[in-house]
Amino acid sequence: MTNLFCWMNFNSFSSLSWLNPLLATTNESETSNSTLVLAGVLLSLVIVYFASKLGGEICARINLPPVLGELVGGVLVGVSAFHLLVFPESGSTADNSLVITFLQNTAGLTPEATESVFAAQSEVISLLAELGVIILLFEIGLESDLKELIRVGPQAAIVAVVGVVAPFATGTAGLVYLFNVPVIPAIFAGAALTATSIGITAKVLAELGQLSSKEGQIIIGAAVLDDVLGIIVLAVVASLVKTGEVQIVNIIYLIISAGAFLIGAILIGRFLSPYFVSLVDEMKTRGQVLLTALIFAFTLSYIATAIQLEAILGAFAAGLVLAETEKRKELEEQVIPVADILVPVFFVCVGAKTDLSVLNPAVESNREGLIIATFLILVAILGKVITGFTLFGQNDLNKLSIGVGMIPRGEVGLVFAGVGSASGALSESTEAAIIMMVILTTFIAPPLLRLVFKEMETKPETIT
Amino acid sequence: MTNLFCWMNFNSFSSLSWLNPLLATTNESETSNSTLVLAGVLLSLVIVYFASKLGGEICARINLPPVLGELVGGVLVGVSAFHLLVFPESGSTADNSLVITFLQNTAGLTPEATESVFAAQSEVISLLAELGVIILLFEIGLESDLKELIRVGPQAAIVAVVGVVAPFATGTAGLVYLFNVPVIPAIFAGAALTATSIGITAKVLAELGQLSSKEGQIIIGAAVLDDVLGIIVLAVVASLVKTGEVQIVNIIYLIISAGAFLIGAILIGRFLSPYFVSLVDEMKTRGQVLLTALIFAFTLSYIATAIQLEAILGAFAAGLVLAETEKRKELEEQVIPVADILVPVFFVCVGAKTDLSVLNPAVESNREGLIIATFLILVAILGKVITGFTLFGQNDLNKLSIGVGMIPRGEVGLVFAGVGSASGALSESTEAAIIMMVILTTFIAPPLLRLVFKEMETKPETIT
Repeated sequence: MTNLFCWMNFNSFSSLSWLNPLLATTNESETSNSTLVLAGVLLSLVIVYFASKLGGEICARINLPPVLGELVGGVLVGVSAFHLLVFPESGSTADNSLVITFLQNTAGLTPEATESVFAAQSEVISLLAELGVIILLFEIGLESDLKELIRVGPQAAIVAVVGVVAPFATGTAGLVYLFNVPVIPAIFAGAALTATSIGITAKVLAELGQLSSKEGQIIIGAAVLDDVLGIIVLAVVASLVKTGEVQIVNIIYLIISAGAFLIGAILIGRFLSPYFVSLVDEMKTRGQVLLTALIFAFTLSYIATAIQLEAILGAFAAGLVLAETEKRKELEEQVIPVADILVPVFFVCVGAKTDLSVLNPAVESNREGLIIATFLILVAILGKVITGFTLFGQNDLNKLSIGVGMIPRGEVGLVFAGVGSASGALSESTEAAIIMMVILTTFIAPPLLRLVFKEMETKPETIT
Repeated sequence: MTNLFCWMNFNSFSSLSWLNPLLATTNESETSNSTLVLAGVLLSLVIVYFASKLGGEICARINLPPVLGELVGGVLVGVSAFHLLVFPESGSTADNSLVITFLQNTAGLTPEATESVFAAQSEVISLLAELGVIILLFEIGLESDLKELIRVGPQAAIVAVVGVVAPFATGTAGLVYLFNVPVIPAIFAGAALTATSIGITAKVLAELGQLSSKEGQIIIGAAVLDDVLGIIVLAVVASLVKTGEVQIVNIIYLIISAGAFLIGAILIGRFLSPYFVSLVDEMKTRGQVLLTALIFAFTLSYIATAIQLEAILGAFAAGLVLAETEKRKELEEQVIPVADILVPVFFVCVGAKTDLSVLNPAVESNREGLIIATFLILVAILGKVITGFTLFGQNDLNKLSIGVGMIPRGEVGLVFAGVGSASGALSESTEAAIIMMVILTTFIAPPLLRLVFKEMETKPETIT
């Protein structure tokens, strides 16, 4: 039996619902389930692509960044509106999913199989989204310039450090002194203010054609450093809450492994890249450049994950290294369609998983949270906007745009809220306030960023 | 809480194993599991790409079709050899998976989470493989010529029908009269001889640049019809076994829905394709051609699945229709990188899921099966090879190549064996014999096909 069903997942005849009584139970359900999961994934992808294109096209027409449209499109199909695309992690059950209802009505999904098909389909779509942001950062790495990034390194470091310290200190102190929030939740809320969502910023920069500008490179560099700093801040805060003291060993381990990884990946990558070029030149089968590059990128992503950093850092480092080879152009061209099919899954899913019910004023903790949220939002925006202006004496820089580029907290800020909430440190209203802050900074950053870069472009005209 | 963890799957800080005690149980395990599943998928993709390129490149150098190398590469990393990539459906457990062992040793996968991570990772890879064959058939459709396909329709129909009837009749009769196999298992084995694996044949044809030749189009047309015929044969056989009679209503339903789907998809598609072109021309955001095309392709694939046909038929029909628009070239270029990253997952997984233990002569039922297998293999090859020669009076055709193109049974034949075995109708030795037949025809077809097309090319030279 074993050796038979090993093929069944690819089977071509697996829509065997009319054969039900004939088939032994487990094999049958496995087989038809795998077809139904495929059907669910296909349907979900159609929804994702439709939402991303509809939202993106509308935004492009009203002069907003398309990625904002993808996020809003995601909100529309997601848990906050039409429930087409919902996920178990957001507390949705299969009954809430219109895709599942549709499968039940059109593809013969049985009630018994519903839960497992829903879980599997959600797992696959979530993973495609994660591959999407990995490919996005790989593409951003490819379009970045390592030399330029190193050259703006000091500025990026200042921006990153100020962008972590300023909102953290202001936020924590403000909550404690102005709102009488206890110290621990205040620290968590402060920590949630530190992180920058590199995905959203990078995508908007790419859309604006500003990725390779000096401002763009400072933002990308600072956002990458911010990611690493965020991991460290989270470790510090978490161990502080847990044991009342900072576990220095963990922190040092994190700092060393993050530094060693980023520097090591780039050094080893630069050492290997001539071999990459000659290997690819030797190869005769289709997809040689793209697949060899992805082997490298996914390996680095894996290593980053294994040492408790993020997969996207590995993909970014791989892109940076390969951008220095003569295959850059070819690779960029081939990555574009791959990014086109995977990246929208990420942004639409971020939107779909955003639960706007936190904005519902009928819930009391939301009302309480609103005042704290207003404060957090102010700190979140100002704490990042000032970062650009800490780069003294460089008047050719659009300093405002650098600060604005660091605004979106995206998913990263929510992880802080999640960890804090799970530890029992956060009150409901503080938690709601953090979520409101994250939603607002995430959705406001793309149009703001466009505005400040537009201003820069049009400035010469207004002078003349 | 709910609205928090809805984001956690994308979280950037999810490698929280060092925060374990801090996090509430379920949220923590969900979070770190999703990171580990991502790590497992990244590792699996690295293995898949490595195996496919290594196998493909070696085959390309010794003048064999690269796809054979991808299949063999898959066997090497799969359940029959190194156990890097194994699947629960093939009876493997997480302990057998070297990827899982690696995750345990490098990424902190805990024993408790092992089973669920293994299941989720296998689900995702299997689904990427299914998307791979869908994209492959979409690409084949794009490279096909609908008019040519309609023109060769009658020949393709003859090839398909002969290729189903001849092996079925010969196989069933031979098993009953020569080997004294009971009628029901003989019918199942005969039915397993009928189907053609369109994926493998199409890929080899594409590699040889023969997809748009008249022979290529006849093979593709016949293979598509064969797929539909196979579904009907399976329905007939299954209802025969179950009730002792043929359920005419089901059969008629299948024939009508298959015909209506293929004709309907193409007619509606041709009607809609001008709108597709003008819609795409209107759009301003990246990926407009590719995503709009995929919305169409995935919708048709979904409908095909829902009416109990195969998803690949929908993708093929979508490709055919879009090939007639002026966007064909642009679309082809953009589909190539997408196919490059997804199609190898399909072929490597087919190889990885192939359990060669059925060839082990130490197992008694394998030895018994060997004689039957020899007979089945002969019938399988000859029964398809003759199909080309039934096209009388068309001496410009390479008739041998058409027959050879229909040889690979691939995954399709195994579904028959699986259904038969699940129904209790097949003895172990007959089942083993069917699997041997499928493995041999699948792996022998690519080199044979290359040989007969090479011969055709060199013929003019040998004459002069």
